[in-house]
Amino acid sequence: ANKSLLVLPGDGIGPEVMGQVRRVVDWMDKRRAVSFDVTEDLVGGAAIDVHGIPVTDATVEKAMNVDAVLLGAVGGPKWDNLDFSKKPERGLLRLRKDLQLYANLRPALCFEALVEASTLKPEIVSGLDIMIVRELTGGVYFGEPRGIETLPNGERRGVNTQVYTTSEIRRVAAVAFELARKRGNRVTSCEKANVMESGVLWREEVQKLHDESFGDVELSHMYADNAAMQLVRNPKQFDVIVTDNLFGDILSDEASMLTGSLGMLPSASLGDVDETGRRKALYEPVHGSAPDIAGSGKANPIATILSLAMALRYSFDLADDADLVEEAVKKVLAKGIRTADIQAPGSTVVSTGQMGDALLAE
Amino acid sequence: ANKSLLVLPGDGIGPEVMGQVRRVVDWMDKRRAVSFDVTEDLVGGAAIDVHGIPVTDATVEKAMNVDAVLLGAVGGPKWDNLDFSKKPERGLLRLRKDLQLYANLRPALCFEALVEASTLKPEIVSGLDIMIVRELTGGVYFGEPRGIETLPNGERRGVNTQVYTTSEIRRVAAVAFELARKRGNRVTSCEKANVMESGVLWREEVQKLHDESFGDVELSHMYADNAAMQLVRNPKQFDVIVTDNLFGDILSDEASMLTGSLGMLPSASLGDVDETGRRKALYEPVHGSAPDIAGSGKANPIATILSLAMALRYSFDLADDADLVEEAVKKVLAKGIRTADIQAPGSTVVSTGQMGDALLAE
Ligand SMILES: CC(C)[C@H](C(=O)O)[C@@H](O)C(=O)O
Ligand SMILES: CC(C)[C@H](C(=O)O)[C@@H](O)C(=O)O
Repeated sequence: ANKSLLVLPGDGIGPEVMGQVRRVVDWMDKRRAVSFDVTEDLVGGAAIDVHGIPVTDATVEKAMNVDAVLLGAVGGPKWDNLDFSKKPERGLLRLRKDLQLYANLRPALCFEALVEASTLKPEIVSGLDIMIVRELTGGVYFGEPRGIETLPNGERRGVNTQVYTTSEIRRVAAVAFELARKRGNRVTSCEKANVMESGVLWREEVQKLHDESFGDVELSHMYADNAAMQLVRNPKQFDVIVTDNLFGDILSDEASMLTGSLGMLPSASLGDVDETGRRKALYEPVHGSAPDIAGSGKANPIATILSLAMALRYSFDLADDADLVEEAVKKVLAKGIRTADIQAPGSTVVSTGQMGDALLAE
Repeated sequence: ANKSLLVLPGDGIGPEVMGQVRRVVDWMDKRRAVSFDVTEDLVGGAAIDVHGIPVTDATVEKAMNVDAVLLGAVGGPKWDNLDFSKKPERGLLRLRKDLQLYANLRPALCFEALVEASTLKPEIVSGLDIMIVRELTGGVYFGEPRGIETLPNGERRGVNTQVYTTSEIRRVAAVAFELARKRGNRVTSCEKANVMESGVLWREEVQKLHDESFGDVELSHMYADNAAMQLVRNPKQFDVIVTDNLFGDILSDEASMLTGSLGMLPSASLGDVDETGRRKALYEPVHGSAPDIAGSGKANPIATILSLAMALRYSFDLADDADLVEEAVKKVLAKGIRTADIQAPGSTVVSTGQMGDALLAE
């Protein structure tokens, strides 16, 4: 049966990098057992320009009914002055929430060929392989009450609410424990239980779930500020990190930058398995829309192509095809073929399209 | 007139490092124009053990009425299982709140002699000199409602509230702009205005204050997740960073670890100037109570001694005396005299007390 894929290129370099993904998908269609029904649609600024809103109901509806969504990136200066509720980011946030993609998997992997690209010393990051599991549909991103009000004295007051329930914590922690079992079998859970009650609840519920069902996995707890330090001090101490939406946003970005190759890192956002046996899923690169280089042919398509590989692995159970893509990436890197962001002395700097060519050739 | 100083050694290595500070204070009393009235009291776990609470009303009262408070560190495994409201950290949080110490100054400075101690490449951190101004009495640390409740379905729900008002934002931003004028004249303000209304308010109010009163300072805005990345990618792009309580907690810890010398970094927490012309102030090292090395003589007293130097500078307007202390630190480092945490090939590793000796000798 054909696999259905909704492609949302979005803004900035999104369309360029997604163009290369489409080429890989076409290649697989022809050469491999799998074949895809691909639909393309608008999200973010691109949707605002056409529809006035960052994602339409129709697009959300489509996203609900495909096997996987592949997203490029959203946002850019053009839409920066829009009202909060109309910004490109709201499109992505609505997709995450409506599809209930509560587990965001962000690998921070240091590619051997790119160790030198890191600002950290090679011995600190060589071999680095962390999986950050970020809660994605709760916490301060979605909590109510929220908003800005004007007080009687003329001052303004801005409010957001950090809120988590038992089941929200348990379901994302379960994903982290299950992933750990297939990796180094260690989970570090991060919060600020020393200052926030929502962090106390987080810590207690993660510990309970561990004791009930994942006693074989090594669990430790770490304050989020300490985690931010430890990622710099000795990142290889971590295997799987599980944390909430806001800490996950910050810690995963920090971790991704340690690798020195942000343009290389994919992510997966997963929901529950529904009645039809399908797990709702959205895949996207960790990097943003990079409006400064959009249209220049400098963008690195690898993160988005590796997001497709994650889709092959997690949504389609096609580990062989995922391996094929990941191997091609390693080979291209080993040959010294690089986009500008990961160039090194002696490497051949290529454009977005040429990187696509090189990957297909492998 | 004598300057009054309340010394709160706290827990773990707190008493050891503060012991060396006391020696420096005594030395100044004898050798310099300034003299001090020093009172010592309990905070954190040390206060819990004696009084059952992490800070008494009497101690807070004393703190209110001195020229400056000098704190060691709080917390440790002994008190980890206490109820949230009784933990050692609450003592520190209460002092910050009751004294209204809204501006937390955390320099992330890379000492030339210690460049190699960083996990980052020398060219990335050499010469690094960032001042992080963290809001310290608002935001999710103190916002109401907060707590954990049990829902009708048996689940639990943990809530904290992120809240800021116009005046809370303006007063801390003013501190940042003023500091920038004495430094590189650039301020980067960090929030998540793309997902949080409290961040939108933060950004707008910082911008307004800038346009009204600090137009000569260069202001830029950066999302907190991007800041976490940029600190790793190119930390020297920053001069002054101003941000809220929670982002400040994380970003300042990350930044301090970039320098590779956490045991070297002081901090100041400042309030408003009161009727008597006194600015409420608390000084403490950035590092924690390090219970694992407490009592072993391995602790590095420099961060706490440099906190005293900050007190001399900001509370007592004794720039010469502050310079004297800071110069002594540089000279000792240049001689290769090091505590274990900052040791390097060829350096002489000394104990906490020996480091104190060396500093006094200089
Ligand atoms: C674009 C933005 C809303 C988003 C977030 O904050 O979650 C991004 O930073 C991310 O990490 O995916
Ligand atoms: C001890 C703790 C309450 C404190 C905080 O979170 O503010 C500490 O991490 C700090 O940064 O001073």
